[in-house]
Amino acid sequence: LNARLFHGAEPIATWPSDARAAAYGDGLFETMRVQDGSVPWWDAHWDRLARGAQRLRLSLPARAQVEDEVAALAGGDSDGVLKLLVSRGGGGRGYAPLRGAESIWMLSRHALPQRPPAAALRVHWCETRWATQPLLAGIKHCNRLEQVLARAECMDAGMDEGLMCDGDEAVVGATSANLFVSIDGRWLTPPVDRCGIAGICRSKLLPLLDAVESRLSVAQVEASAAVFLCNAVRGILPVARLGGRAWPSHAAVDDARQRLARIHPGFAHDIQSTERL
Amino acid sequence: LNARLFHGAEPIATWPSDARAAAYGDGLFETMRVQDGSVPWWDAHWDRLARGAQRLRLSLPARAQVEDEVAALAGGDSDGVLKLLVSRGGGGRGYAPLRGAESIWMLSRHALPQRPPAAALRVHWCETRWATQPLLAGIKHCNRLEQVLARAECMDAGMDEGLMCDGDEAVVGATSANLFVSIDGRWLTPPVDRCGIAGICRSKLLPLLDAVESRLSVAQVEASAAVFLCNAVRGILPVARLGGRAWPSHAAVDDARQRLARIHPGFAHDIQSTERL
Repeated sequence: LNARLFHGAEPIATWPSDARAAAYGDGLFETMRVQDGSVPWWDAHWDRLARGAQRLRLSLPARAQVEDEVAALAGGDSDGVLKLLVSRGGGGRGYAPLRGAESIWMLSRHALPQRPPAAALRVHWCETRWATQPLLAGIKHCNRLEQVLARAECMDAGMDEGLMCDGDEAVVGATSANLFVSIDGRWLTPPVDRCGIAGICRSKLLPLLDAVESRLSVAQVEASAAVFLCNAVRGILPVARLGGRAWPSHAAVDDARQRLARIHPGFAHDIQSTERL
Repeated sequence: LNARLFHGAEPIATWPSDARAAAYGDGLFETMRVQDGSVPWWDAHWDRLARGAQRLRLSLPARAQVEDEVAALAGGDSDGVLKLLVSRGGGGRGYAPLRGAESIWMLSRHALPQRPPAAALRVHWCETRWATQPLLAGIKHCNRLEQVLARAECMDAGMDEGLMCDGDEAVVGATSANLFVSIDGRWLTPPVDRCGIAGICRSKLLPLLDAVESRLSVAQVEASAAVFLCNAVRGILPVARLGGRAWPSHAAVDDARQRLARIHPGFAHDIQSTERL
């Protein structure tokens, strides 16, 4: 694994054994698309990280230093994924956070995930619910057991991804992507104020597609004219099957992908690669 | 930190940088009281760990090896705390758990925590709610951001501990202890089927005190004749103040402590130490 680890400003060789990231998932992360040696949506990733750090009262490393490391690790190959994990330093046994402790943070480089065999995704309705917790909603924190369990369900079902509902049967999103559905010619996406993650791709698509937030039921999603998932690594992922419903390719999804490709060179590259197949 | 780390049966020097414990809190832990070189409640801790592992479909290390390491680390000083953390191995980026991957596990030794200045605890009603998630309720998993946030509240309020409610305003328990209240001469403790942790001390006290599980409101707790918190490290901790209510010492709490001391040498030792003060 191509990774660099720091405690505050200082490089460290390994995670300390009392790391609060491992003990309590006491941290935040960003998963970022690299294209042509840089991270096109860096500002948005940093802003979300800062909002999460404020919510968890967690110290951030100096942005300039993180940017230097991002530049160093993003260079070289033309595309890939960077993951930035920022966790609370201070250690100790017990939940009490040490005020002002310098963070332990890790930057790692990964290959782009393989496209699933089919161009569009087969999506599973997960039994695992996304618990309602407004204090943690929206931010990309490291307490992700619900998503691990939901993803295990998808694997058991032989599906590519899974959609999760909250305890009130409102649809929240996929385990590692946000959901957009087209109803009456308008793109809708679930709010992320009670649970869910405020995805960076989602935040870019909301104005780009003139989309609106709306609580959605399972029945509404299955009745939609078109459905896609999205995240900052893969962009827009059309959904082909979900529960009892199948969708053929849809002009509105193609249009959304073209619009997204215009604002992010990585997704432009993906579309060109797909067309060459 | 006196710690030993393993991947499956093999000792390893440090956490791998792609550890799922740090990435997702994808693990379980036990915090155990050591007395006279052994862990008196070891069987109960292992059983809860095994239940958690079944729920998360996580591989456990071989019990015999863990017991050898526990014995090695528990020996020496007469009392202390052992922490066992078992996390899903396999790494990789993404939530999907690798089926059957050998666990990464850590055993660490810690000093007994200091008693708070006052003999009985001053307890805060936390604003942070404990989210309802039956799939994770009861087990002692490593997704503990809610407890970290709740404990930060207690520190801000200058209090020793905090009681948390769920989203329906039912009392769940303290951030790192279970709650027992005496109402009409009977000990009651909240159920842990929707959220909360099934504490080992709680499980020992339920039959010992002929206690029963009961959903409790804030008003019921404050109207109780006596209140204590309990966990496997400190045993029974009397509550002196909570919200607007104060309790003097109570014979029923003293009686419960004496009963507990008869089944665990560590808590017998604690009572003797307190009496010597």
